[in-house]
Amino acid sequence: MTAGHGTADMVSADQHLADVMASVRPLAPTELALAEAEGCVLASDLTARYPLPAFDNSAMDGYAVRAVDVATASQRAPVTLPVTGEVAAGDTGAYGIAPGMCVRIMTGAQLPAGADAVVPVEWTDDGDTKVAIRQAAEAGHAVRLVGDDAREGDVLLTAGTLLGPAQLALVAAAGRGTALVRPRPRVVVISTGNELAEPGAPLVPGKIWESNSFMIAAAARQAGCLAYRAPIVADDPHLLLDAIEDQLLRADVLITSGGVSMGGENDVVKDALQRLGTVNFRKVAIQPGMPQGFGSIGPDETPIFTLPGNPVSAYVSFQVFVRAALGALLLTDALKLPVTRAVLSGPLRAPAGRRAYLRGVLNPADGTVAPLGGQGSHQLATLGKANCLIVVPEWVIKMEAGDEADVMSLP
Amino acid sequence: MTAGHGTADMVSADQHLADVMASVRPLAPTELALAEAEGCVLASDLTARYPLPAFDNSAMDGYAVRAVDVATASQRAPVTLPVTGEVAAGDTGAYGIAPGMCVRIMTGAQLPAGADAVVPVEWTDDGDTKVAIRQAAEAGHAVRLVGDDAREGDVLLTAGTLLGPAQLALVAAAGRGTALVRPRPRVVVISTGNELAEPGAPLVPGKIWESNSFMIAAAARQAGCLAYRAPIVADDPHLLLDAIEDQLLRADVLITSGGVSMGGENDVVKDALQRLGTVNFRKVAIQPGMPQGFGSIGPDETPIFTLPGNPVSAYVSFQVFVRAALGALLLTDALKLPVTRAVLSGPLRAPAGRRAYLRGVLNPADGTVAPLGGQGSHQLATLGKANCLIVVPEWVIKMEAGDEADVMSLP
Repeated sequence: MTAGHGTADMVSADQHLADVMASVRPLAPTELALAEAEGCVLASDLTARYPLPAFDNSAMDGYAVRAVDVATASQRAPVTLPVTGEVAAGDTGAYGIAPGMCVRIMTGAQLPAGADAVVPVEWTDDGDTKVAIRQAAEAGHAVRLVGDDAREGDVLLTAGTLLGPAQLALVAAAGRGTALVRPRPRVVVISTGNELAEPGAPLVPGKIWESNSFMIAAAARQAGCLAYRAPIVADDPHLLLDAIEDQLLRADVLITSGGVSMGGENDVVKDALQRLGTVNFRKVAIQPGMPQGFGSIGPDETPIFTLPGNPVSAYVSFQVFVRAALGALLLTDALKLPVTRAVLSGPLRAPAGRRAYLRGVLNPADGTVAPLGGQGSHQLATLGKANCLIVVPEWVIKMEAGDEADVMSLP
Repeated sequence: MTAGHGTADMVSADQHLADVMASVRPLAPTELALAEAEGCVLASDLTARYPLPAFDNSAMDGYAVRAVDVATASQRAPVTLPVTGEVAAGDTGAYGIAPGMCVRIMTGAQLPAGADAVVPVEWTDDGDTKVAIRQAAEAGHAVRLVGDDAREGDVLLTAGTLLGPAQLALVAAAGRGTALVRPRPRVVVISTGNELAEPGAPLVPGKIWESNSFMIAAAARQAGCLAYRAPIVADDPHLLLDAIEDQLLRADVLITSGGVSMGGENDVVKDALQRLGTVNFRKVAIQPGMPQGFGSIGPDETPIFTLPGNPVSAYVSFQVFVRAALGALLLTDALKLPVTRAVLSGPLRAPAGRRAYLRGVLNPADGTVAPLGGQGSHQLATLGKANCLIVVPEWVIKMEAGDEADVMSLP
């Protein structure tokens, strides 16, 4: 006799999440070339070896001066200075100015020794051998001082930071050609089920087109992973174990979908893996996505997640549990999906005793969220329109338009 | 004499954006295999060729019955029915039940002809040849009716939709092995400047490490592009034109950084491109990022964007203008960065007459945004900590803690 669908024998969503997170060990760090490190997570704090900028330089095109020499300059009584040279961005010579002299300077060029301000070209007559300056510049004007972005030894980025465009640029600007990161997790997705046919195959009543592996692999890539779709596996435990063994070689994480329902006799994933004793199957008090399994498999104790076969259940399970586990694998908070509060634009219903994740459309501009129709765990059309999950607590069974709800943005 | 920095000769941010968007023609659609279409934008509406699901099927493991046959079932007075067969997910035979009979059925399996409900196994004694049913199931119970996710001919996804995980799954579930999409734009990023050295090279006063091409290429990939960093180009118009010619072959969009400042004599990008007459250089009333250029180049009139060399200026210009242009290239709204309102947790200052994009940290949970210190256009350390841009209108020069501001989330 199979256990019932009451909530008494279920694990709470929070407990399940905590157990999943605790089951995962971080990947070992590796030093990667900068271009390869894009989208990876820093494994240690990145400190500045040099100040940023590394030398005083000009923020504008103009003339490097001693501020004191142009203190009286005005439209009516310009100050004229001899121009003794020119320094462009990238010039590496030793430049200097004597009192009463100036040097033409370009944006980004080193400030010559002796100068303490830059007069923008717009305040001058743009002269070549001498220049008439029509406005005083205070000391420091249009000068970027050494270290005004970061000082030597400053922590530029902390361990756990995801190297997006700006962070990657900062690593580059700090002179590093490499970064110590945790590598992108290699995720293999295995869909199981006799009913599955590859998309593009002809319609056969009784069969459905396989979609979960496309979905989960894409979601894993969104989370920064290298993801692979394994061939579809039929409902045969030996075939599944063979497929897992084949795929383990290239997997940091294995994800199966299907074959874990609670009352079925054809639960191939449960059948095959339960006997190993390293995978924990349980019912979790969420909707959709009640039947969950996680654990490890193979000689390297590779983490494995057995997601339910209903597409919406698989998707929600990935975003809520697997994505968090990937964060634990990379020791980062960067994969956490942002949760905000929004005002419901329509009513919703949710099951008692289970945390519900309902598909919705969040409008960030006005802070409202519209629950979508068609919340069945097989209803992909609704999921395709959603940009968020409305998170309904276990003790709430209905909400009305105008109520505030927690909303988890989807990546 | 160079034009001054007054706002009179500037184009507004909105006008510039409109001009940029209008200058770009969409890429031609192409039919791609599903796995290749991931992250691409649909070029036409995707309609359902078949209903979804394509046949009535069971939502649970249990027994397919005629509801009328179990209408009296209760804990005290179970109804016992003969079990005449079993149908599993993927079975493609023609199944049926006669009145007073039932068939064991698995989740996802076709509902046999004659059945109109599924009794979950939890409501039964799990019998094999006959089954005692202890609870009545109404007609339709645990049955997913043909077309209850989508009907034949329904528009599943509209043109312009980005194929993320859920959308890709929907295309797959609808049986399509391919999708008509606009291809990922190929973006080539060329950084210019004598001062630039590759990260990892030794420190030389006067030189800086090149970071913009890493940043812009990464930002382009975030926007779904295939991005390439071209070799750094020195401040020589001929070298730049040669580099552009070399790169045009593989570019749908060219992006340069540097060489466009307003008063400089070493403005290599302006020098080289202004004479072509197809690139429009202008000052835009924003901060950072005032000097902007856009237009087209080469025999295919490839769109080109000339971004300022200051890293924060280049970044903001990309997110505000180039990303929008990429959206126009793909005919999608999906690249629009979400703008929300948030309460400032500290004061800020902004220039008169220019729209400012200040780096900030948005806390979606409490709806506050903290402006960061170090807002200079060369200050990458601040940008590395930001998750949003605070958008300050042209007519606002200061805001206080507690004021509400527009906040653009960064990807």
